Amino acid sequence: MYDLLNGLRVVEGAAFIAGPSAGLHMAQMGAEVIRFDAIGGGPDYRRWPLAPDGSSLYWEGLNKGKKSIAIDLGRPEGRELAVALATAPGDQGGVFLTNYPVKGFLSHEALKARREDIITVRVMGWADGSPAVDYTINAAVGVPQMTGPADDPRPVNHVLPAWDLLGGAYAAFAAASALLRRRASGVGAEIRVPLSDLAASSLSHLGQVAEVLTGGDRPRMGNDLFGAFGRDFVTADGQRLIVVAITPRQWTGLLKVLDLSEAVGAIEAALGVSFARDEGARFTHRAALFPLFEAAFAKRDAEALIPAFDAGGVTWGQYQSLHQAVTHDPRLFTANPLFQSLTHPSGLTYPASGPAATLADEARMALTPAPRLGQHTDEVLAQVLGLDGGAIGRLHDEGLVA
Amino acid sequence: MYDLLNGLRVVEGAAFIAGPSAGLHMAQMGAEVIRFDAIGGGPDYRRWPLAPDGSSLYWEGLNKGKKSIAIDLGRPEGRELAVALATAPGDQGGVFLTNYPVKGFLSHEALKARREDIITVRVMGWADGSPAVDYTINAAVGVPQMTGPADDPRPVNHVLPAWDLLGGAYAAFAAASALLRRRASGVGAEIRVPLSDLAASSLSHLGQVAEVLTGGDRPRMGNDLFGAFGRDFVTADGQRLIVVAITPRQWTGLLKVLDLSEAVGAIEAALGVSFARDEGARFTHRAALFPLFEAAFAKRDAEALIPAFDAGGVTWGQYQSLHQAVTHDPRLFTANPLFQSLTHPSGLTYPASGPAATLADEARMALTPAPRLGQHTDEVLAQVLGLDGGAIGRLHDEGLVA
Repeated sequence: MYDLLNGLRVVEGAAFIAGPSAGLHMAQMGAEVIRFDAIGGGPDYRRWPLAPDGSSLYWEGLNKGKKSIAIDLGRPEGRELAVALATAPGDQGGVFLTNYPVKGFLSHEALKARREDIITVRVMGWADGSPAVDYTINAAVGVPQMTGPADDPRPVNHVLPAWDLLGGAYAAFAAASALLRRRASGVGAEIRVPLSDLAASSLSHLGQVAEVLTGGDRPRMGNDLFGAFGRDFVTADGQRLIVVAITPRQWTGLLKVLDLSEAVGAIEAALGVSFARDEGARFTHRAALFPLFEAAFAKRDAEALIPAFDAGGVTWGQYQSLHQAVTHDPRLFTANPLFQSLTHPSGLTYPASGPAATLADEARMALTPAPRLGQHTDEVLAQVLGLDGGAIGRLHDEGLVA
Repeated sequence: MYDLLNGLRVVEGAAFIAGPSAGLHMAQMGAEVIRFDAIGGGPDYRRWPLAPDGSSLYWEGLNKGKKSIAIDLGRPEGRELAVALATAPGDQGGVFLTNYPVKGFLSHEALKARREDIITVRVMGWADGSPAVDYTINAAVGVPQMTGPADDPRPVNHVLPAWDLLGGAYAAFAAASALLRRRASGVGAEIRVPLSDLAASSLSHLGQVAEVLTGGDRPRMGNDLFGAFGRDFVTADGQRLIVVAITPRQWTGLLKVLDLSEAVGAIEAALGVSFARDEGARFTHRAALFPLFEAAFAKRDAEALIPAFDAGGVTWGQYQSLHQAVTHDPRLFTANPLFQSLTHPSGLTYPASGPAATLADEARMALTPAPRLGQHTDEVLAQVLGLDGGAIGRLHDEGLVA
């Protein structure tokens, strides 16, 4: 945790990945993030993967360091509490993260009527409000048709919810940007971040919209890197490594380690191209190049190749399972200073990650685990809404909070 | 484009996706983003996909709306110009986005010696400075081993550079957060955003680190959604649709449209589970459920199913190619207000996307295309560094700028 957002209070009424991860990013940069949920938990409260006791590892991963208040959102008095939290006065508040529908009791209009400078950041499925999740949007933009071996026509869904993760980071960026404007001008904002628009804009930014308009769809090509040199190869001892060479230096370094400069030079001479100068030529002529690399990897053990790659500045990676990485890879997990061991609401103790960013020369403050549902109900009602003990007791008696 | 970051100047010395997309997000929210490159272009200047004239659709996608200055970075005088730009005084400046190495002439220490409150946001491969790209990190965290049909053991790389895209949005969030702190306290920051840490932290946030520690690796399962109900199915007329049911409402809506409530009820009775109440049971017993759904889809045409899904609030998607989407899908591309038609440096005119976020009730300002390399060299030298015409002319004469 770092202190970049110290003094900021964010109210989160959201579920699943994109909204809660935006809140998580802000919490891990120092904001006080108050998540409200229905009593008994929202629609993501039992989402897999699960701990042995049945609680959700997903929920406790995405809600680390937040405060939790549980409210009966089915009754007008409960809804009023949620609106009061989101719109509580004061310079430190007035930021609301949500994936609730555009219309309804948490609409921007309703909130703005209570707090003129409210900033609402709303993660959505389709921009028109229709339901969508990461995987349905991904199918619609053609990624599964481009993924997987060229010899198999079946579409391959990604397993990493990339659009959700992007949505979380982008929503956090949008919230921080809107805060910069509000602090300068006093003006709030209603910001909508649909997964459909994240996908459409990203494919525009990557040049792929222009690509299909000028050249049609990109074919499936398995693990071959588009537009330069990259693929997985198997070593003599059966390990699978990926190498990627985009810049001239990466390319010449790779050839040197694999002792392929001469053989590749002969192909260059025959084809009249320079692979060092033209990364695209490496892609165009990859069918001529790959057999040389397959043979070179097949002659060498990973044990010998890896230090040579490192010494030669080669960009490479090892295929390993997540379990292998989590239990054995010091750079990613076992010695990564991002991780701190915490005891979580599931009762399990395991390492959890702080922010992806490292602020050099600033201490990583202690992480706190996800809350139990309703763990901060009384504290939030007292501190944010200014209710006294009697009023809080009555809300409990009426079953409006838990 | 919106005005959330109006009055901010960001200097970008970066290449490829993560760094330049962070600058793009900031430019599209109103910041003046000045990208400097080597004369003749940086390592991403010819990156595929290419336009018919050989210029990069990728470069012009990722640099929309930025200003470009070309500098001879091989000579000390050129390097001094880059440092002077990044550290130019004034409240509006002092934010530097980069993927240059931690050490060297653009190190945070070197910049801080010139401007005490500089904010440096550095996208990296591995956190220790070793080279990595999206695809090598992805192999190391086990995603390719989880991706693809269960009947094929080959690892499947993702084709969407998810870690790069996440890195761009997260770096933009980190920069905006650091600005909020600087405006409150006057303190700058050195922020490092390694792809390796983005991957490790994301898999922690999603609960997957805890999952493998408690239960081992998640097996490959093709397009089956983990932990709830979701998969692709083929309709009578041969169209492939994905449906996802996570919440009870999504599930009961899906059963109703497919007329499966009774058949599924019989399975529930036989197994002693409630699929409506327990999304995980739908996953555990998917082998019993899938044949019913396959048969139900195979009896119906997409033309009839789609409006029924929409009326029933079902979360579904259509597998289409990116070309189909770009040329025919109004919600994603052909009628999406994010897109404006621009004439780009390649000479091509095609629609390009503004920010993924929509600020309701605020006008989307006109987009500007990517610059030609060096298009703003003189303007930047005059406005940011205060050089007069004579000094700028001498820099050109010495070949230090172009």
